[in-house]
This record gives sequence, structure tokens and C-alpha cells, in this order.
Amino acid sequence: MAAAAPPPPPSPTPAIISEDLLPTGYNVFSRIRLATIVDVPHIHKLIHQMAVFERLTHLFSATESSLSSTLFPENSPPPFTSFTVFLLEVSQTPFPLIDQNYPNFSPIHKTVNLDLPITDPQAESFRSCGNDAVVAGFVLFFPNYSTFLAKPGFYIEDIFVRECYRRKGFGKMLLSAVAAQAAKMGYGRVEWVVLDWNVNAIKFYEEMGAQVMQEWRVCRLTGDALQAFANV
Amino acid sequence: MAAAAPPPPPSPTPAIISEDLLPTGYNVFSRIRLATIVDVPHIHKLIHQMAVFERLTHLFSATESSLSSTLFPENSPPPFTSFTVFLLEVSQTPFPLIDQNYPNFSPIHKTVNLDLPITDPQAESFRSCGNDAVVAGFVLFFPNYSTFLAKPGFYIEDIFVRECYRRKGFGKMLLSAVAAQAAKMGYGRVEWVVLDWNVNAIKFYEEMGAQVMQEWRVCRLTGDALQAFANV
Repeated sequence: MAAAAPPPPPSPTPAIISEDLLPTGYNVFSRIRLATIVDVPHIHKLIHQMAVFERLTHLFSATESSLSSTLFPENSPPPFTSFTVFLLEVSQTPFPLIDQNYPNFSPIHKTVNLDLPITDPQAESFRSCGNDAVVAGFVLFFPNYSTFLAKPGFYIEDIFVRECYRRKGFGKMLLSAVAAQAAKMGYGRVEWVVLDWNVNAIKFYEEMGAQVMQEWRVCRLTGDALQAFANV
Repeated sequence: MAAAAPPPPPSPTPAIISEDLLPTGYNVFSRIRLATIVDVPHIHKLIHQMAVFERLTHLFSATESSLSSTLFPENSPPPFTSFTVFLLEVSQTPFPLIDQNYPNFSPIHKTVNLDLPITDPQAESFRSCGNDAVVAGFVLFFPNYSTFLAKPGFYIEDIFVRECYRRKGFGKMLLSAVAAQAAKMGYGRVEWVVLDWNVNAIKFYEEMGAQVMQEWRVCRLTGDALQAFANV
């Protein structure tokens, strides 16, 4: 705790704010909004970048068309009741307000102050329509269910921030947006998986209060084994 | 491989089937059907028995009322698009056909031949309405999503068979019913979790062709930590 400061001198011009209270560096405006079908080309590129990052491109078979038909089918259920995508956009200028008000959700705006400007070599291909914003990341989640709580929760399948936007708090913003939505809807839990060797991520999750279920193992039945077992 | 058998003597009366080909023991009729809101009292008891089995009753807070409102809300989405429960019923007599035909799903009937009859000390409290059947188990599952495949799958939250019905193939029948449903709907995967010390279960799952994702750890944000992080 700092020593008690002497009483401040009377302010001659109260309207002037001390310079060291002014934000230094660069302001970046960010917005988290619900993705729509017109965002599919960006979502497809983001998922592909994630597959490259995870060295799993051999497992990647999504196309723009298959993403459109499964994430945004005709007669889509309302957001949050099925597969839901939040997009993270960043811009040098403030975002206009958009009409995207679902029950319990409005786009989230935050201004982030950075020491250095961000150089985005892929800005052109991630340009978001309608303003000077670019798409910087996404989170895909859907409801899951706890029988012990008799409550839904959210399961986060993917969370991804493009390389030049990492280590600036954007991943935490996406995760927090899902947690906030769960809390608003009275849901009991938010869950996701992490690789056991990713110690930095595990440390980050534990510091924010998440439990890591050390004894659980995910089992997966897919491909020919799924077809064969389906016919038992 | 057994030695070649001598040719069989000509059958004097081909209509008579050799006695050792006749089923011995006891026939039990089983049915897997979609649960409805009237099954909630049974589902509640089954979940409670599961909590006792897992020594997790301190985490059990479901009530019949909370299960009804979350599993079978007003304007429920169609089965398989959200939280879905298959009930396993068994009976000494064949099941009547019921009118429960959803797209791609009709109740599954199987006759199981057992060496010994099953003594069910809780038969009265698990009596299923409308016939002499009892509820013997359940599986609760819901859609999940793979971004790499751009396909939905099913996640099995719980699978449970009451004690006196275990080790008779009923668990496998429930799991297979979910796999069959996934295959019919063109879904890519069925996933669930298992405890790492449950080596018998892991062996069983691996033998049926499931992969156990050894490096994955489930993270869970719940309770006060969820509320706190939601306000970041």
C-alpha cells in the first residue's frame, strides 16, 4: 500500500485532466456479435487457420457450403438453443450500433488500449462488411446439459483468435462473453477441453476459477467404427 | 479351429429342431423408446441412483420439477435437436407397438435370452405405465458439433442401467441405439467421457472401436467462478 499522499493542491482548471491519466498508446475498438450466414466465408477461414495451428489439417473437411447448411440451416433455431457463433471484430474506429438484440444478448463493445499498433497482414481477406472492421476471432458453442443440476450449460467447441491479435486479452473476452451469456440465462456451467501438455492454457483457466477434470477421458466413436456399432 | 466334423446323419423329421438349438433359460423382452414428460419421476429416480453409484450425491440437486422444465419445456424442440432421453424398458411379455415414430426413429425391440431370471427388488417403483414393463435404464444425449467435419454429432451425458439389469448387454444396447441414430442422421461422431481408473469400461469402449482421447482434459467453470468471470 502506498504511503498517504499529501492533500492535492486546489485545481485551477478542473476541466483539464492530468496527462498521465490519459490513455497512452493505441486504442482498438472491439465488438463481439452473433455471426450470421454471411459470415460463413470468414468462419471457414478461421477454422482452417485453427486446423493449421493444431497441425490437424488432415482432419479438416469443412467447406463453406457444409458450414452454412449445418450452422445456419433453414428454419434455424434461435441463437443459444443450438450451435452458436460469436464473432470478434476489431476496428480503428468505433463500431456503429447494430440491431442485433436477442433475448438476453446485445453485441458487446470494448475499447482496448495497446502499447503498439497491430499490423494485420491478412486484414483485406478478413474485412467485415459494412465498416472498416476486420474479423479477429470466434467462439463456437452450444447447449449441453447436467442431469445432476437439471440445468443446461454451454459447451465451447472452439475458441480461436488470429495470430496478430493474440496476447491482448481477446481470447478472455470471447470466453467471458460465453460465461456472461450462461450466467444471464441461469445456466449452470461452461465447459471446454484443453490438451494436457498446454500448461500455459491450463494455468490461465485455473487462475480464472475453472476446474480441470483430471480423471476424465473423452471417448469418441466415429467413421467406420460408428457405422459398425450402429448396426449391433 | 475345430477339426472337421463327420457329415451329419440324415434328419428323419426335418421339422424338429435339435433341442440344443432351442433357446434355453428365460426370455426377456426389451424396448428402447423416447422418454416423455410423464417419465420424469422415473428419470429422476434413475439419475439419483446414478449419483449414489458415483458417490456424488452432494452434487445432486435435480428435482422432478426442474427436470420437467428443462428436459420437456413448453414448445419443446423435436427429439434429437436438443436434450433427448431414451428409456430402456424390460418386460416378461412382448411389448405392444406404440405410436412413436419420429423422422428416422421408431422404438427398438429386442428379445434377450438369459440363463437365470432377473429378480428386480424395485420393480414396483419402476413400473412403466400401460403394460407390465419396468424401466431398467436410460441414456441422455444431445447434439454437439465438429467444426473440422462441419457436422453435428451426439454427446452422451449419461448412460445408466439399474443394478439388477447390468452385465446383460443392455448398456451396449443403449449406446448402440444412440450410434444408430447418429448414423441414420448422417452425424459424424458420438462422444462421451469415462473415468480414467474405470479400466473395464475403457477396455469395453476400445473393443467397440472408440478412441480414448488421452491428452484431452475437460475444463469446467461453474458456481461463483462462473458468475465472477461473467462480469470480467
